[in-house]
Amino acid sequence: MKLSRLGEFGLIQRIQHALPVGRGVRIGIGDDAAWVENPAGSSLVTADLLIEGVHFELKWISLFELGYKSLAVNLSDIAAMGGVAAYAILSLGIPADFDSGAIDEFYRGVNALARPNRVAIAGGDTNMAESLIVSVCVIGHAPYRPVRRGGAKVGDDIYVTGTVGDSALALKLLRQHKSRSRRKDVARLVERHHRPTPRLATGALLAKNRLATAMIDISDGLMQDLAHICRASGTGAVIRQDHLPLSRAYRALAGKDGVRHALSGGEDYELLFCARNRNRARVAKLRSRAGVAITRIGSCVAADKGIVVIDRSEKPVAISPKGHDHFKKT
Amino acid sequence: MKLSRLGEFGLIQRIQHALPVGRGVRIGIGDDAAWVENPAGSSLVTADLLIEGVHFELKWISLFELGYKSLAVNLSDIAAMGGVAAYAILSLGIPADFDSGAIDEFYRGVNALARPNRVAIAGGDTNMAESLIVSVCVIGHAPYRPVRRGGAKVGDDIYVTGTVGDSALALKLLRQHKSRSRRKDVARLVERHHRPTPRLATGALLAKNRLATAMIDISDGLMQDLAHICRASGTGAVIRQDHLPLSRAYRALAGKDGVRHALSGGEDYELLFCARNRNRARVAKLRSRAGVAITRIGSCVAADKGIVVIDRSEKPVAISPKGHDHFKKT
Repeated sequence: MKLSRLGEFGLIQRIQHALPVGRGVRIGIGDDAAWVENPAGSSLVTADLLIEGVHFELKWISLFELGYKSLAVNLSDIAAMGGVAAYAILSLGIPADFDSGAIDEFYRGVNALARPNRVAIAGGDTNMAESLIVSVCVIGHAPYRPVRRGGAKVGDDIYVTGTVGDSALALKLLRQHKSRSRRKDVARLVERHHRPTPRLATGALLAKNRLATAMIDISDGLMQDLAHICRASGTGAVIRQDHLPLSRAYRALAGKDGVRHALSGGEDYELLFCARNRNRARVAKLRSRAGVAITRIGSCVAADKGIVVIDRSEKPVAISPKGHDHFKKT
Repeated sequence: MKLSRLGEFGLIQRIQHALPVGRGVRIGIGDDAAWVENPAGSSLVTADLLIEGVHFELKWISLFELGYKSLAVNLSDIAAMGGVAAYAILSLGIPADFDSGAIDEFYRGVNALARPNRVAIAGGDTNMAESLIVSVCVIGHAPYRPVRRGGAKVGDDIYVTGTVGDSALALKLLRQHKSRSRRKDVARLVERHHRPTPRLATGALLAKNRLATAMIDISDGLMQDLAHICRASGTGAVIRQDHLPLSRAYRALAGKDGVRHALSGGEDYELLFCARNRNRARVAKLRSRAGVAITRIGSCVAADKGIVVIDRSEKPVAISPKGHDHFKKT
């Protein structure tokens, strides 16, 4: 079967079957990060492969921002397990006509995020390539039991950190060449798209306090990532549209798109998690220490109810749950 | 400066400067693998990025062999530090018109090497790409002090495992479309090119017995990788051409190329190491346990003597020490 028919998630399932869970792998393929035990200790492991023309266009993102974002998306996966990032391995495929100053810029961007998060760059590989390729692998550790995707139960509350939709709306504006506008709101959204903030502190707090029953970072879009949690947990979900946390910039610029990007747009790198209903007060208390907004947006329901978005009058909103799939033709 | 002028090693140096050695990184960029300490323990880390059209051509290598080799080259780096491989992270960029059966083949090749070496595949990332991209990261541990490149001293013996030149000669034959020949010798060389054997047991034995003062795996070519050892150690080297271990197949097929591929051809993934002259008997004793030939091919001399290859009558042989550089135009 051609990959374009099988799709990204079909392929991941297939790889999962092809690779028996090895010795020491406590959590393998299919979560935000893998969790492995070996004689040297227990580690969280995550990887991202970013390819020019597929994941980024150099006309829209600077090398500094690309360096920053390449590390950020991996740290976000560690955050989604409640882990602590330790070091990164960074491989680059670089077109031969690239200027070495551009590569310096890239590493400046990497460092700008690595340093405050105490992530060491341990090594990597550099090679010639037709277009720019960035391959990042981050190794972390799990001071607390890693939070998986499959622990949500019917009745659990559903929360999200920060605001959603900013990144996807920014991408739309970039594609329409509206990003050069001097409006502060545009700049704010574009910054969210280029320099997402991995929610490491919040993820670790949730794991430490055993509050999150299931957790994922929003990379493919809220609805699609919620579907991953629901599938793994065997639940459905009801999301209250008017509870979605939207930034001031998003509200100002979304226009007739409404909450579309907030629901289906990818690359927010916020945490989406579930928590027992009885722990609502404890989650609320955590907010001040998390340093980021934590908003309750819905709750888990029986699996046969599916995943529904409802409006203020509790009526279901027609919504395509489709997020991003790298292979499937849309 | 354009990367094509700066060259691969110039770029690596530049990245080394751009990235201050982070917290916990005991050996950073510039050796076969990095050695990091973190709260979860101490790890050896290595990565390779393999790109279709740059590192491999799918008309010459099967997906099974590509999977096998992608892991092998990384295990070889762990071997060159005297370490033990624990798990791998494997990311793929795949053209959308690829058949999913081909990806199964790739993972069968990975497994064929991972299983006997007890290496778990922990996770990775899959994406769409224009051409096939394979990014592998292997994490291991160091039961013994890792062997670096910089410990050789004047007077040390220089050794190599297995035979050299097979892989490069095979590549030449593949390029000349002579690989379909039924001659057993051709098949043997091509197998060496496609399924190199990482010398994990030998590397670990050398580290355990503290016999290797400096070690590297031959990926860029014997002369170039020897130059890495000499630069890091502050020595020169004399290599005895008639001591070079050549396979029967190599001798049968090299023709007028003579020892050219043995000296400058890449991708043998044999270990090149130095040992104190006084330990010659101990190294000889190790041979039977290593399960692979270990041949003394020369000795370290003062740095100002440079790196020289001599013939049977001790006369220097004119040789270009140039191995493979992914960026520099030749």
